[in-house]
Amino acid sequence: MRVGASSAPKNLAGLLVAVIKERGKVELQTIGAASQNQAIKAIAIGRGLVAPNGRDLICSPSFMDIDVNGEERTGIRLVVEFRPE
Amino acid sequence: MRVGASSAPKNLAGLLVAVIKERGKVELQTIGAASQNQAIKAIAIGRGLVAPNGRDLICSPSFMDIDVNGEERTGIRLVVEFRPE
Repeated sequence: MRVGASSAPKNLAGLLVAVIKERGKVELQTIGAASQNQAIKAIAIGRGLVAPNGRDLICSPSFMDIDVNGEERTGIRLVVEFRPE
Repeated sequence: MRVGASSAPKNLAGLLVAVIKERGKVELQTIGAASQNQAIKAIAIGRGLVAPNGRDLICSPSFMDIDVNGEERTGIRLVVEFRPE
């Protein structure tokens, strides 16, 4: 899912945890420092959401080329999943 | 280690991989979206540095209070380590 600079980290956290529970992992796509910041905050909050169940989240960042209105931009992809037990 | 907004991700990547090899993990402290951006890029580059050895890096973000010249700021701590095999 794409993360906007104005995405609310708390809402995003709930959403990403729901997707990870259903599919095992989620891919957050960010372009620019501001949207990346929201994504990282959401992951930090998400860790708190799963902690009461004895789980933890980890993320793996990588570069990605994204087409934004016909213009090629370099973004960061954050794959988030449960920490292997 | 603290990451500045002007830290070069490529240099930081080499440094963080060296520390992880020696100590098992490294903690990157960032304040603000720009320094966080450099840290995340460094982790993405670091994954490429360890990949030829069949290893991968994961990171865990959390919030932290940092004292900056006597002023309390909220930063993001990124603990980076090898992905468990």
